[in-house]
Amino acid sequence: MSPIKNAYSPQALAACRERITEHLSLATPLIDGSFLQTCPVYLKAETILPTGSFKVRAALNGILSQLERCQSKGVLTSSSGNFAQAVAWAAARLQCSATIVMTSTTSPYKIQRTRDLGAEVIICEPTFEARWATTYRLEKETGKILLHPYDSIETILGNGSIALELDEQLSALPAKHISILVPVSGGGLLAGIALAIKTLPNPSKTYRIVGVQQLVNGSLKKSLAAGKPVKVAPFSSAADALVALMPGKQAFNLIKKFVDDVVLVSEPDILSASRLLMSEQKLLVEPAGAIGIAALRSGAYRLKIDEIAVCLLTGGNVTLEQLLDKKRGEDRVSSPF
Amino acid sequence: MSPIKNAYSPQALAACRERITEHLSLATPLIDGSFLQTCPVYLKAETILPTGSFKVRAALNGILSQLERCQSKGVLTSSSGNFAQAVAWAAARLQCSATIVMTSTTSPYKIQRTRDLGAEVIICEPTFEARWATTYRLEKETGKILLHPYDSIETILGNGSIALELDEQLSALPAKHISILVPVSGGGLLAGIALAIKTLPNPSKTYRIVGVQQLVNGSLKKSLAAGKPVKVAPFSSAADALVALMPGKQAFNLIKKFVDDVVLVSEPDILSASRLLMSEQKLLVEPAGAIGIAALRSGAYRLKIDEIAVCLLTGGNVTLEQLLDKKRGEDRVSSPF
Repeated sequence: MSPIKNAYSPQALAACRERITEHLSLATPLIDGSFLQTCPVYLKAETILPTGSFKVRAALNGILSQLERCQSKGVLTSSSGNFAQAVAWAAARLQCSATIVMTSTTSPYKIQRTRDLGAEVIICEPTFEARWATTYRLEKETGKILLHPYDSIETILGNGSIALELDEQLSALPAKHISILVPVSGGGLLAGIALAIKTLPNPSKTYRIVGVQQLVNGSLKKSLAAGKPVKVAPFSSAADALVALMPGKQAFNLIKKFVDDVVLVSEPDILSASRLLMSEQKLLVEPAGAIGIAALRSGAYRLKIDEIAVCLLTGGNVTLEQLLDKKRGEDRVSSPF
Repeated sequence: MSPIKNAYSPQALAACRERITEHLSLATPLIDGSFLQTCPVYLKAETILPTGSFKVRAALNGILSQLERCQSKGVLTSSSGNFAQAVAWAAARLQCSATIVMTSTTSPYKIQRTRDLGAEVIICEPTFEARWATTYRLEKETGKILLHPYDSIETILGNGSIALELDEQLSALPAKHISILVPVSGGGLLAGIALAIKTLPNPSKTYRIVGVQQLVNGSLKKSLAAGKPVKVAPFSSAADALVALMPGKQAFNLIKKFVDDVVLVSEPDILSASRLLMSEQKLLVEPAGAIGIAALRSGAYRLKIDEIAVCLLTGGNVTLEQLLDKKRGEDRVSSPF
């Protein structure tokens, strides 16, 4: 077997889960979302993790997989915000220095949070290309260990740990057929979930894995149609954690193999889902994290008759002002918020 | 044994839990709150339940314990808001009509939510006494079944179901000694938790049970000092779910017997805890529900060296505007919110 195949084995996933569980003492909650009156749906709330997103899993796994090197050389990453905070937190916890490249259009809130967690933040031009050019230049110049936000084995395995928890948690429920809805940017989360679920030795349920992306993005859907990663033009979206213009190569290969469907949703539907999770479920979920609920409510994705849905609520890094302002601007329907 | 003693047995608690679990498919989450940087603390998030508070447990148990009578006569209650919504939801789900007495000063948001859930709302004068006078008058006039928000066996058992879940969830953690911090209004929740935990046949941990009340209220502390329920003067508090002016009689007797400590916290500490849970844990928790965290952060309650804390996050029924406005008025420290 090649080293790559070994790296993606169920054994490697189990080892990753054990490695990060030492630092995240309990599985993230699985919550009955029936009060949302959408469809039979459960919510996997990654929002409650340190730094407010699932990204701490990959950050911990990335550093713990090569701890001594990271401690001696420091770590480096490029992020639209959530991976930045996660790496800053994990690096501080594991005694590594951290340098993070962010663009000048990243929300000041996310930049400040990253700095508060002790990382050095380097601001670059506001394009996806500039972010990566700066990151690769710094990697060469400084010798720091690059932790990729979505397209490395360690990141994909870290993300896959969610699926292992989920399969155990779902075993308590009577439903047999599950659709898991996963937000998509560079595809690392979708790839990790799909890989982990579809290679489980004894899954407790049958699963369909569904990627959800903004209508204004759509790069994964286009890439699947083309059979290779396709880059889309820059766009602006309320889901500001989903900004990759094309899927990562490793992620894309796994997605082609293991993912069942990809659907797209509109900006108003995303915002409305985010506000619904706040008003009915009392969870602060950033627009990117609410995109699965948006897919169900808008009809972009439909369950089969005997299925239930699980939405991954991936992050909660949005200010109340942002949610309120967005609402005032774009939705005048009466609501408690 | 008298019927009352029977009603409070571990068997009755287990039966109550089974009865309501049919309607609330999963235990509420236990969440690692170490990112709050307060002390070793776990959060039991009742906020994610239908209608956003723990009160659905008691509402379900109250109706299910006498379902046919409730269906034929309808149910009646008096509430500052959270029990109102819970009874409205449970009654609609179980095909009962519901009438709820609320005061003219109850937040319009809570009144509207209760009506939206299908209940008839009767508005009375804005005093604790008027609420109960109206409720008892309606009970006589209409023959509806009164569900007491905090001082009935059914309510106390419903609340106790939280403790049964919690003891099981805590068994996964290495800590041996636990302090459970419980918000106090009429004392029904504190009584239910204390009763359930202290009569567990095989508890997984040792427990101290701690009631937490607003400094501007303090009725439970005064009552314990006096050895009997003492009524305090009306007060205004951000924790608008904790408005009972004295503990209920049944609750008080259980609290005297089973509760280890009662502490008081200030209004700014309560608001600050509520905002911290939003910014760091991404949970919308109303001020009343955040009072346990306030007790820990302010030093009003201190853990012993080998203890960890569990805070019951009891409800999330507050609007973002309320949280933001309160913040703008009372706390000008820079924060993401």
